[in-house]
Amino acid sequence: MSKRIAVIGAGPSGLAQLRAFQSAREKGAEIPEIVCFEKQDEWGGLWNYTWRTGLDRYGEPVHHSMYRYLWSNGPKEGLEFADYTFDEHFGKEIASYPPRAVLWDYIQGRVVKAGVRDWIRFDTPVRWIEYDEGTGKFTVTAHDHKTDKTYKEEFDNVIVASGHFSTPNVPFYEGFDIFNGRILHAHDFRDAREFVGKDILVVGASYSAEDIGSQCWKYGARSIVSCYRSAPMGFDWPQNWDERPELQRVDENTAYFADGSSKQIDAIILCTGYKHYFNFLPDDLRLATANRLATADLYKGVVWNKNPKLFYLGMQDQWFTFNMFDAQAWYVRDIVMGRIELPDAATMEADPVRREAEEDAVADDYGAIRYQGDYVEELISETDYPSFDVDAACEAFYQWKKHKKEGIMTFRNHGYVSPMTRKKAPAHHTAWKDCLDDSLEDYLRT
Amino acid sequence: MSKRIAVIGAGPSGLAQLRAFQSAREKGAEIPEIVCFEKQDEWGGLWNYTWRTGLDRYGEPVHHSMYRYLWSNGPKEGLEFADYTFDEHFGKEIASYPPRAVLWDYIQGRVVKAGVRDWIRFDTPVRWIEYDEGTGKFTVTAHDHKTDKTYKEEFDNVIVASGHFSTPNVPFYEGFDIFNGRILHAHDFRDAREFVGKDILVVGASYSAEDIGSQCWKYGARSIVSCYRSAPMGFDWPQNWDERPELQRVDENTAYFADGSSKQIDAIILCTGYKHYFNFLPDDLRLATANRLATADLYKGVVWNKNPKLFYLGMQDQWFTFNMFDAQAWYVRDIVMGRIELPDAATMEADPVRREAEEDAVADDYGAIRYQGDYVEELISETDYPSFDVDAACEAFYQWKKHKKEGIMTFRNHGYVSPMTRKKAPAHHTAWKDCLDDSLEDYLRT
Repeated sequence: MSKRIAVIGAGPSGLAQLRAFQSAREKGAEIPEIVCFEKQDEWGGLWNYTWRTGLDRYGEPVHHSMYRYLWSNGPKEGLEFADYTFDEHFGKEIASYPPRAVLWDYIQGRVVKAGVRDWIRFDTPVRWIEYDEGTGKFTVTAHDHKTDKTYKEEFDNVIVASGHFSTPNVPFYEGFDIFNGRILHAHDFRDAREFVGKDILVVGASYSAEDIGSQCWKYGARSIVSCYRSAPMGFDWPQNWDERPELQRVDENTAYFADGSSKQIDAIILCTGYKHYFNFLPDDLRLATANRLATADLYKGVVWNKNPKLFYLGMQDQWFTFNMFDAQAWYVRDIVMGRIELPDAATMEADPVRREAEEDAVADDYGAIRYQGDYVEELISETDYPSFDVDAACEAFYQWKKHKKEGIMTFRNHGYVSPMTRKKAPAHHTAWKDCLDDSLEDYLRT
Repeated sequence: MSKRIAVIGAGPSGLAQLRAFQSAREKGAEIPEIVCFEKQDEWGGLWNYTWRTGLDRYGEPVHHSMYRYLWSNGPKEGLEFADYTFDEHFGKEIASYPPRAVLWDYIQGRVVKAGVRDWIRFDTPVRWIEYDEGTGKFTVTAHDHKTDKTYKEEFDNVIVASGHFSTPNVPFYEGFDIFNGRILHAHDFRDAREFVGKDILVVGASYSAEDIGSQCWKYGARSIVSCYRSAPMGFDWPQNWDERPELQRVDENTAYFADGSSKQIDAIILCTGYKHYFNFLPDDLRLATANRLATADLYKGVVWNKNPKLFYLGMQDQWFTFNMFDAQAWYVRDIVMGRIELPDAATMEADPVRREAEEDAVADDYGAIRYQGDYVEELISETDYPSFDVDAACEAFYQWKKHKKEGIMTFRNHGYVSPMTRKKAPAHHTAWKDCLDDSLEDYLRT
């Protein structure tokens, strides 16, 4: 097999793709040549924390949106690899909401075992990709920062796994240009201790707002006010956390809200989401989609309808993560290797349209979890990715939702049943709100 | 004339290039078609302030390294346009160290008068440029964010005027990953009032360190410690500003220096310079140079020796700025229009080598100012750019150096003689350290 495949990004999705091919080779198949382009100097994508903000040491946008002290905000039982359990990696069951260092270690463990690191070109952003109708090949232009050289190479397929939680959506509100404190997007949030004793405004009502606000509360912010456009998060917040309706404007030191209220604040953290952003792709190859469960223009959520030699991984909004990326990566692998045949163009085009309609009919978050669980099941049923109990993963998510409602600062103290090992996670040795040490060593001690 | 010229960037250098061509047309010459690609939604380059940091609303790196309350750190008499004086723009002589809004207004005044705004494609970063030996043309790939469309166009010449104070050089020091306060590069510094009452560490000993430290002092930081690698700035600092030798490391809240001293700090501002960075250029077109007065590989400081259809403006380290960009832009214009003939390749290659040797022989800052003044004179003598009294501009710089030595917080209270109008600038109505309003309106009132 003389095919050459480019994988863009060595984060959870890209690494799933490398593991998918390596798994086929391990079982005796001949696999294409794989080249994975990674902008950062390390693998792990968003999970590869650095203290840097803005631009990295080479002048490239910092990829991750990670912060110190981050613990998973969903149960690990929802994201476990079916071919590499937490139990296998750590040699024991661990608690359900691991901090970043623990999850990063887990992600790496599988690909270290697989021996695919040599397939990755680190410090190498992709500058531009084009498809040539004549040759039927893609030309990838890349910049190797280690040698400061640019070059072009041809590939038969391109698999875009560059993520969509790296380019912040940063709205302007009146007065941002005269506010005297720091204004930052969640993407640039690093250490909650910067905000000890401060009055913080968190703009937004989704996962970043909830978690970054909680971090600031945990590490000693004086007060938090968060604000929403459509609906409040509605958790039972601590006494020094207020939810207010939409931000109207700020002045030098005060925020004004749609209900006529105002509050003096020291800093503004914009938890206003991310954009699908691909500065290396021309119009005919570039995905444009809302952040939703059924992405536009992708057959089975992964195949670019307008050119089915191009694939996208993990571009959906996500309840499921690592194991969904696996399901996608195995599926894409099997198309590339000719094991799965694509249907005609009309069928492919109808697929995302139908998926969108089905998503629109979903009633609530519980339905959305089930919807994405069904998608994961659909994909894994068509490949040799190890089947797993998706119902059990959904059940972990349902309980997580319930535990959050019961206590937004206590839900991480719960444990869930692994859909892979069927074992229930032990409780962590310390309640989340009292556990200020987020190191791997501290998390793993019993 | 059917030539097409691409100008990359509509900052002071790019705008000088537009004005240079428009000036020729005004005098009756037929000029090429000019297309100026500008990443931002406004002209002015670094002088186009926004409150944003990191990535802009389109996901592009924020270009400027500007901050609120910035006043020119050198006398306006050193940067005045010879074809458009401050006197002409403002209708009166103004004081010598204008704040940002005043300089931005001045830069715009000339190009508004010239009527060149239609030549600029705003919100349009250039993604990639290639040169085709066969056709002898450049292909520019651009992304129009307003319509979210990418496209390619051909040009006979490319003039790179994208600046070199936008991509921060961000070193790592031991402990940056555990420090509990904010770590930012000067590029992301916005409002000194964020640091009121705080103990600040400024890393660096050049213009950013001097000016950002001074801003923090002026607006009420509790203390400033700055540190140097080679030599201290050596000004007569206020009592709450210390200079220390090189930073060795930090821990959660303390900085440790090479002399064994330490200091508790709340924030770290890295004034560690910028990189020449061109993510849209392949190796054969990409300038790689140190930040110095004699740039590598550029004949007369502007012509890319390896392909003399490509030009760079303003890539030098700078004493002279706006009028040097003019001198360069007029010179490049005359090459493009066939008014100036380039010498043979050997002569072109020898030119920057000779300039580097001459720069290396310069004894001190006074010599360096004169060296760059001579370069400006050399270029303007070969075009119809209005000749001006470069000696007088140098004299303004010499006095500026002297006044800084006399008082780093008082030098901006002085006024100098315009090399264009021969008039001496009036004193400002308020001493710089007491003048907290940096608006154009306040600066211009008498």
